[in-house]
Amino acid sequence: MDRIIEVLRDRIGEKRLGHTLSVVEESLILAKKHKAPEEKVKIAALLHDFAKNITLEESVKLVKDYNLELDDVTITSSELIHGPLGARMVRDYFNIGDQEILNAITYHTTGRENMTTVEKIVFLADFIEPARDFEGIEVIRKRSLENLDEAILMALDSIISYLINKRSIIHANTIHARNYLLKKGIGE
Amino acid sequence: MDRIIEVLRDRIGEKRLGHTLSVVEESLILAKKHKAPEEKVKIAALLHDFAKNITLEESVKLVKDYNLELDDVTITSSELIHGPLGARMVRDYFNIGDQEILNAITYHTTGRENMTTVEKIVFLADFIEPARDFEGIEVIRKRSLENLDEAILMALDSIISYLINKRSIIHANTIHARNYLLKKGIGE
Repeated sequence: MDRIIEVLRDRIGEKRLGHTLSVVEESLILAKKHKAPEEKVKIAALLHDFAKNITLEESVKLVKDYNLELDDVTITSSELIHGPLGARMVRDYFNIGDQEILNAITYHTTGRENMTTVEKIVFLADFIEPARDFEGIEVIRKRSLENLDEAILMALDSIISYLINKRSIIHANTIHARNYLLKKGIGE
Repeated sequence: MDRIIEVLRDRIGEKRLGHTLSVVEESLILAKKHKAPEEKVKIAALLHDFAKNITLEESVKLVKDYNLELDDVTITSSELIHGPLGARMVRDYFNIGDQEILNAITYHTTGRENMTTVEKIVFLADFIEPARDFEGIEVIRKRSLENLDEAILMALDSIISYLINKRSIIHANTIHARNYLLKKGIGE
């Protein structure tokens, strides 16, 4: 863990490292509450923003070098590209082969349908860590301790509304994640 | 046209026929304004809700009979299924083979990326016909006479926000339609 933190400090800087450590802390609270494997959650949370400080231009180059197949929307947005790229990079940097950890990193920004508990926790923790502040966050924080799926549905609604207001692209996985929960009857 | 209206009156009832004729009228205004083929626009507008009054259960049966391949989200929503089902049915009922007319019917509810002008007009006319009333509609009506893409982006934003508030599923095509316009620089 200390080694990872040193590499992170170098790559993403002190401020984002602060956010990352808050996400780790939040993730571990959720993991304990929802009986998820804490070590996996910790590693995924720690590495979720590994590729965040890479410019879009450089990210696109790395995606090509790694032969990653990313869709047209992901490849044009640094908000979106850092998840899948980061997952690929930490495989190399830290020899991480656990697919659930890699998926939690890959999908932490967009979500996707049928997430595992580890994926759900990293997605939510990133959204509600203490430094985040937006309308309705307290309700989502509270719900995240009671019901992960309901909290994620609220988070997805909030993310989509935010992106609509900002006139930003929305990844289809975010919509698939939400449709999946609605079809399961979450939020009724 | 008279024959189609008689069939429609029988299938969708007087009230929805009223909506349909308003969409035809609105479509023709937009077609003239944006120099689109009026006859195509008229037929597509006239038939856009052909399958709307069929129950979901019956719609699913018809989809199977026609061997239509619809995605999981479309097949579970009467809001969504009536577009593609209607397009297939009017091929049989009125021997319509024009793919652009059929696409305008198929995608009139969700939109999709890279719509033709005929598709755009039917999509918008359905959204802004005179009986529709919601916050912001006047701005979209005005914009639809000036710039179809900008009006569609506003309509898509409005539709997505509405579906978020209603906790309803959102079709991925609606998101693809919006991302496509944003990537083209619409709304900047």
